[in-house]
Amino acid sequence: MKPVSAPPRFSRRSAGQTSSAIREILKVTEDPSIISFAGGLPAPELFPAAELSACASEVLQSDGGAALQYGTTEGYRPLREWVSGYLSESAGLPAEPDQLVITAGSQQGLDLIAKVLLDPGDVVLTENPSFLGALQAFRAYEASVVGLPVDREGMDPAALLQFLRQTGTGYMRQRGTGYMPTEAAQRGTGYGRPKLLYLVTNFQNPTGLTTSAERRRELARIAAEFELTILEDDPYGALRFEGDRLSPLAALPEAGNALYLGTVSKMLAPGLRVAWVAAREPAVRERLVVAKQACDLHTSTLTQRVVEQFVRKPGRLEAHLATLRRVYRERRNVMVAALRRWLPEGSRWTTPEGGLFLWVTLPAGADASELLPRALARKVAFVPGIHFWIDRDEVSTLRLNFSNAAPERIEEGVRRLGEALRSG
Amino acid sequence: MKPVSAPPRFSRRSAGQTSSAIREILKVTEDPSIISFAGGLPAPELFPAAELSACASEVLQSDGGAALQYGTTEGYRPLREWVSGYLSESAGLPAEPDQLVITAGSQQGLDLIAKVLLDPGDVVLTENPSFLGALQAFRAYEASVVGLPVDREGMDPAALLQFLRQTGTGYMRQRGTGYMPTEAAQRGTGYGRPKLLYLVTNFQNPTGLTTSAERRRELARIAAEFELTILEDDPYGALRFEGDRLSPLAALPEAGNALYLGTVSKMLAPGLRVAWVAAREPAVRERLVVAKQACDLHTSTLTQRVVEQFVRKPGRLEAHLATLRRVYRERRNVMVAALRRWLPEGSRWTTPEGGLFLWVTLPAGADASELLPRALARKVAFVPGIHFWIDRDEVSTLRLNFSNAAPERIEEGVRRLGEALRSG
Repeated sequence: MKPVSAPPRFSRRSAGQTSSAIREILKVTEDPSIISFAGGLPAPELFPAAELSACASEVLQSDGGAALQYGTTEGYRPLREWVSGYLSESAGLPAEPDQLVITAGSQQGLDLIAKVLLDPGDVVLTENPSFLGALQAFRAYEASVVGLPVDREGMDPAALLQFLRQTGTGYMRQRGTGYMPTEAAQRGTGYGRPKLLYLVTNFQNPTGLTTSAERRRELARIAAEFELTILEDDPYGALRFEGDRLSPLAALPEAGNALYLGTVSKMLAPGLRVAWVAAREPAVRERLVVAKQACDLHTSTLTQRVVEQFVRKPGRLEAHLATLRRVYRERRNVMVAALRRWLPEGSRWTTPEGGLFLWVTLPAGADASELLPRALARKVAFVPGIHFWIDRDEVSTLRLNFSNAAPERIEEGVRRLGEALRSG
Repeated sequence: MKPVSAPPRFSRRSAGQTSSAIREILKVTEDPSIISFAGGLPAPELFPAAELSACASEVLQSDGGAALQYGTTEGYRPLREWVSGYLSESAGLPAEPDQLVITAGSQQGLDLIAKVLLDPGDVVLTENPSFLGALQAFRAYEASVVGLPVDREGMDPAALLQFLRQTGTGYMRQRGTGYMPTEAAQRGTGYGRPKLLYLVTNFQNPTGLTTSAERRRELARIAAEFELTILEDDPYGALRFEGDRLSPLAALPEAGNALYLGTVSKMLAPGLRVAWVAAREPAVRERLVVAKQACDLHTSTLTQRVVEQFVRKPGRLEAHLATLRRVYRERRNVMVAALRRWLPEGSRWTTPEGGLFLWVTLPAGADASELLPRALARKVAFVPGIHFWIDRDEVSTLRLNFSNAAPERIEEGVRRLGEALRSG
């Protein structure tokens, strides 16, 4: 008998999973004396708590038996009907109720899509830097994430094209039934076949940048050519406080059956955990439903009903969004003015037209990770950009959230940040 | 260039997932004229909707900012503190708040445990028949489920022992650091190493049977000997309306760090999607939290707060459980009496001491799947037992739910079932 190594306790996929470094930073910021630009938290004082309370009472008292019972995996139908109308009216994205799945936050949408589409080694292409929660969802299924460069208009289409041509993606459909790998594909690059193109098109997390209309078309065209599934994640689209709303990439004819994620987390409240996937291809939608059934049966019937009760009142959501836009615009303005006042020369930052975040590039030589302890000592927190970069040692960037803190706290926090920088 | 097959659209794990056949049966039963014994639904008229509504108002009006905000992945701490006390007092199961993870229903507990522990090909041992939702969760990670025979006292320990001795489980820890496969293991059986022993110890779904105290100890001892992780799923334990409550298997000293699942779905309301995993081994608990973070960030803050608000009032949950036990006992009695009256000679059934289900074995020659359309034509529904069996052609069994329908409907439904049987 030959000895073998101890049987592994955990799955291979789990062994590769690590807790988010941001989680550790957020734990520090639970101290209320710290001014936190670190989280992605909406302003809690703007949650329509009294109205949601009335919605909960209405639902529980008029239809408690159904609102507390098991529900269907795909989600409460009247809510899906509302989402369908909302996507079509506000975003020009046609999605029938039967093309939607209600999920427990967009994070679950990412998880389900990864579970259904990705085998170990499959490649997901993302903006670089990108949303950490998405990277975690993809990596939990042992996918390889490849980050492609972005400029102020979004992901660089030339870089996307070059990557696709150099990898196993280059399958060309031939007459007949088979596929032929292109010559470049046969040479190989060490990467598996890219399966998914993940994009946060509006006020991206972490950069705050928006993919331009022309860029959306270009990216959709390239994805179509290479039969790459697009996954557009749009949690912030409704929070545009400047400029014209752009049509989602998924709504473009070139985008085919792109997957699209939306959520009430930033429009209403994240604690409800109500979001949706639009999957217009029936086979994909069916597999998402089957996967969700095995994951959690269905999203809380009660929170779905509360959201539906809130949004069904004409004009109520729009009025609430108008408040959010006004407040967040002011906070962004305060933060940008404070950055101009307190950050050393050579610092740069994005000026987002919506959303929750902006992105700072420090003067050459500065390291945001080294800055963090000095900032925390002055009771101000942020997330070093390094956590959002994929395979890149960019130490000079950092993400700032401007939605959560009141204007005077933003001003004071940025002042302390400048102080921490100059103390380095 | 040689042609290749079309690149697979879906992941391998997804390709193996099918929708539950029960889901199709349940769709039929949405017709309110059908008397349904098919689902696993609690009695909706007993949901404490008014009290939960008051709890929601209290939480949202006194602390809406926090109750609607993002929360921690492990779950709302006061709720975990309550669960810790509840498990210790009601079940004698010691679990600190930091050994608990709040999940979106026990289904998510099953999913997270499978995600963290199971690689493709790993074997999960279950009772045969077993809970379909668990089988789906395990199979979604390409695990092999092996069902072991049960008798009226639970899983047969001799069968468990025999299986473990004949498979690759037979790793014996040697002096030194290595493991040695036993001789039997080297011979192999075509199965991978069993990693998990899944048991529903109280009023099992689908049989309604309870694992006896002695059997719990035997199974725990065997699992310890073979270093097999126990997963005890206990959704119905609080619904014992007859006999003495047994200590959970996970609470036995022999059970080591067995994983334990509990939920408010049957005690309070399934639509809330609030449940818990007790994972007393820190490394397992940490990985479950990391996995949950990638799956859905956290369970709805609002529903967690509503549950905590309900249970914190002394005696309120216990009073509610007393009502459930009284009503469910009556319904079981009505169903058993009706079975005695209307089912043909040679039929047998279990008489559960709690829970939601009983299990019928029809006279030799009868096929429950053939019975179903005749029953549906008479407006009564059930689930053929075949859906719960693993690799076994047992056509004569069926599962009946007794918690959902009122007594007169139960009596009438069983009468129609007998009529359908005799019409075959």
